[in-house]
Amino acid sequence: MSIKIGILGYGNLGRGVEEAVKKNDDMVLTGVYTRRDPKDLKINTEGVAVRNCSELEGGRDDIDVLVICGGSATDLPNMTPKYAKLFNVVDSFDTHANIPSHFANVDKAAKDGGNIGIISGGWDPGMFSISRVYADSILPDGQAYTFWGKGVSQGHSDAIRRIKGVKDARQYTIPVEKALDAVRSGQNPTLTTREKHTRECFVVAEDGADKAAIENEIKTMPNYFADYDTTVHFISEDEMKRDHSGLPHGGSVIYSGTTGQGNNHVVEYSLKLDSNPEFTGSVLIALARAAYKLNSEGVSGAKTVFDIAPAYLSAKSADDLRAHYL
Amino acid sequence: MSIKIGILGYGNLGRGVEEAVKKNDDMVLTGVYTRRDPKDLKINTEGVAVRNCSELEGGRDDIDVLVICGGSATDLPNMTPKYAKLFNVVDSFDTHANIPSHFANVDKAAKDGGNIGIISGGWDPGMFSISRVYADSILPDGQAYTFWGKGVSQGHSDAIRRIKGVKDARQYTIPVEKALDAVRSGQNPTLTTREKHTRECFVVAEDGADKAAIENEIKTMPNYFADYDTTVHFISEDEMKRDHSGLPHGGSVIYSGTTGQGNNHVVEYSLKLDSNPEFTGSVLIALARAAYKLNSEGVSGAKTVFDIAPAYLSAKSADDLRAHYL
Repeated sequence: MSIKIGILGYGNLGRGVEEAVKKNDDMVLTGVYTRRDPKDLKINTEGVAVRNCSELEGGRDDIDVLVICGGSATDLPNMTPKYAKLFNVVDSFDTHANIPSHFANVDKAAKDGGNIGIISGGWDPGMFSISRVYADSILPDGQAYTFWGKGVSQGHSDAIRRIKGVKDARQYTIPVEKALDAVRSGQNPTLTTREKHTRECFVVAEDGADKAAIENEIKTMPNYFADYDTTVHFISEDEMKRDHSGLPHGGSVIYSGTTGQGNNHVVEYSLKLDSNPEFTGSVLIALARAAYKLNSEGVSGAKTVFDIAPAYLSAKSADDLRAHYL
Repeated sequence: MSIKIGILGYGNLGRGVEEAVKKNDDMVLTGVYTRRDPKDLKINTEGVAVRNCSELEGGRDDIDVLVICGGSATDLPNMTPKYAKLFNVVDSFDTHANIPSHFANVDKAAKDGGNIGIISGGWDPGMFSISRVYADSILPDGQAYTFWGKGVSQGHSDAIRRIKGVKDARQYTIPVEKALDAVRSGQNPTLTTREKHTRECFVVAEDGADKAAIENEIKTMPNYFADYDTTVHFISEDEMKRDHSGLPHGGSVIYSGTTGQGNNHVVEYSLKLDSNPEFTGSVLIALARAAYKLNSEGVSGAKTVFDIAPAYLSAKSADDLRAHYL
């Protein structure tokens, strides 16, 4: 009576979900689904089938929860509602401005299918969101600050890779210590974008590329870099491989609030992750368990982390949790 | 359509709950209930009645949720089931070994009365418990460490005050930096009681008391101090008043877990509180909102923080939370 997990999409996140399933005794991976030719895909779990995503059409008995590992820009807005009609689904949709409409679309589809659709799982949105809501609920007279890093931003790394003359790039987002200290001290400072984070870029240039021009193009790139203090290091391909092949990340939600006669309270939730996709995948898998449990109780529709009690994420019984975790 | 709050018991925690109500626009304090003569009690909210707890018998229309601010040793085991028959209730029961039986007693009473009874609210048990369950659910291959302090332990302060020749005392629990660092680094160390925390005591001795004997009695006291490195400072009454009149506390839940090929992840939830009772009271008030909402949906019985979705604690709408907190 394991929970049968399907993974749709096998990039970094899909592989992170696959690793997470291995750590959970109450789950089993029954298939990886891809838009590519399944023959071209070698996965990290022996004995598990790789299938084309067309085989999801019409539903399958060997999937209790489908974890959808696609991009927020173009994949998830279509995929999550489509598959929520057929399966319980979990996604990591993170285009903040479009969350309300995505929620509405998934809600309709999931209710039509009698399924649960959990959207925007992961750590931000996800665990960081939970921390913001708990702190805001406990201390309404207060303010939340979110810091990211030190960690690799894949979006910013990709933006550098699109510059002419760049062969490879890795961008680290780094919180500014002075800003962290001010927030942790309960001062509730007003901080500009520049004061909160710096950006550090490691770039492999093509032979004969104009490094000064590349550096200038990075540092002046609107939205991505122009509002930040950015440093650029040119390194070799070997150095990139040796020193920057991981995908670490993390960050902190720091909430500072007041009660009574000026008593201040600082609540901090922080993550230090060796692998962003493996941790994100682990959150999605805990949410997949919640989707399964909720649906088993007859619940359907779209949910976010705000709608799910902590016990639903756990493989442990309510008695066990009360006896050993309270 | 404010949520009507009653407070039973007006010690430090009761006053903390009272302050918390003032910070929440969707709530109103309708009465403070005491076992003492109400005439002897002056509260910090103008225009709110103080009544003897006998006036709770048989129920009241002006209470949606009764927040029970009694001690875990003798008050709450009787009070919470008794009043859960009549009202939605919230308590901060923290005798860990007895939580299962307390839960069962409150569950029966609350179901009989058609009410919600939330037990073991606060920060530990409470917010720390939530952090342990989330982290354990996401990273089952891992380990949780809980550190308390720096902060005043009222139980340990009371234990010192019972020693002959002691006029007043304040005990601070302090986490050992070296242990914190080891845990944060992901080493998953095995730590003895002595290695995790030290205890620092400030004592006002009576005139002519044998200070060496007092210090020895503190340091050798079983359970409370014998297993810790303890320091004792004798100070004047004025110094006690000037430097040690607050009730600060806090601590950290640090969880370190592994995924994939040895990737480590460290999750930390930490609190730095100027006033332990005001923060605890603020958690109880957020849980009182959850009790009210759950009961409005027709749910009854005992609940812990594990059973309550984050959105139930918030005064904000689900749409607002999705649009601005995810």
